Amino acid sequence: MRISELSARSGVSVATIKYYLRERVLPEGERVSPTQATYGEAHVRRLGVIRALVDAGVGIAGVRNVVAVLENPPESPYALLGEASAAVNPPEADDDLDLGPALALLDRLGGDTDDCYPGQLAALARALAALDRAGFAVPAPVLASYVEHLRAIAQAELDATPTESAEAAVRYVVLGTVLVEPVILALRRIAEQIAASRRFGRD
Amino acid sequence: MRISELSARSGVSVATIKYYLRERVLPEGERVSPTQATYGEAHVRRLGVIRALVDAGVGIAGVRNVVAVLENPPESPYALLGEASAAVNPPEADDDLDLGPALALLDRLGGDTDDCYPGQLAALARALAALDRAGFAVPAPVLASYVEHLRAIAQAELDATPTESAEAAVRYVVLGTVLVEPVILALRRIAEQIAASRRFGRD
Repeated sequence: MRISELSARSGVSVATIKYYLRERVLPEGERVSPTQATYGEAHVRRLGVIRALVDAGVGIAGVRNVVAVLENPPESPYALLGEASAAVNPPEADDDLDLGPALALLDRLGGDTDDCYPGQLAALARALAALDRAGFAVPAPVLASYVEHLRAIAQAELDATPTESAEAAVRYVVLGTVLVEPVILALRRIAEQIAASRRFGRD
Repeated sequence: MRISELSARSGVSVATIKYYLRERVLPEGERVSPTQATYGEAHVRRLGVIRALVDAGVGIAGVRNVVAVLENPPESPYALLGEASAAVNPPEADDDLDLGPALALLDRLGGDTDDCYPGQLAALARALAALDRAGFAVPAPVLASYVEHLRAIAQAELDATPTESAEAAVRYVVLGTVLVEPVILALRRIAEQIAASRRFGRD
């Protein structure tokens, strides 16, 4: 199909499609003349993924990283998960970071440092340090609840990983990492609101 | 204390403190001369909160909203939760949004639309629409796991809300809404990585 039809099919403007082509997050179409190229279903699907990532607040550099993982998926599911996670939140160097509290939680999750992908433990440590700087301590029963229930969620997610093809597994892991996070946060806020409504009333 | 001591105590530069004063997220100090003001412990605490929000990626407009909630807390815990949530992610108008899938999840969480604060249901609907546009369907058992376990987490969080003072409750709710989200996301990613490691090995 021509770029105009690709635009109509995907709901993405021609100007934006050309931007994604320049940024190399969308592969070139097949050249049919020096000034024209033709695009296929893979381009429609890829545009859907790109738009979803952009809508979820991922910047163009993050999109490029995710696309790279989609195009060159690592062979092991373990590496795939880690690379999907790193693609969206690239590890930052931070020598002063105190990993102690994060390591304690890792232990409670039933893992050790070999289970973590570079950057994941640092991301947790940074999040805990930000709480600490704000003078906010998560109450012990709440932290215990996070550990218990996020373990259960992770297990359910892993159990549902498609195994019929590498591409399906990659899509599931990458999109499940990035796009599901806003769903989880929105569900938590609504669940809190419902619990508050039941406990205190709505007025 | 003088602004230089406030800077040393809080770890925030004098220039940045002056910026926060101009942006009115930090209250003016007490004037002791036409060119000098004095600051107290409340300023140190407030700077801790501001820095934590900024580190968590909240923009200056969001910080101003959160500060407004902290300074004028609503009387009911129900309104407090909703306003804290709205302060950080202001509701966006979106007439085309299909609320159907979000309403179905709200029902499964045990709530109805009266339980939701403006914007919360729309945030969930937008997150679900982004998944849909990417051609990604959350498998039914995984969705069931989110509903069950996020309900449990919300209940644990609500049970731990401090009741000794309104200020303590406000801090808990506002910071628990914003600053705990990165902790939850980091824990989920690590828990997934541990589950993948146990299932598939690390190579």
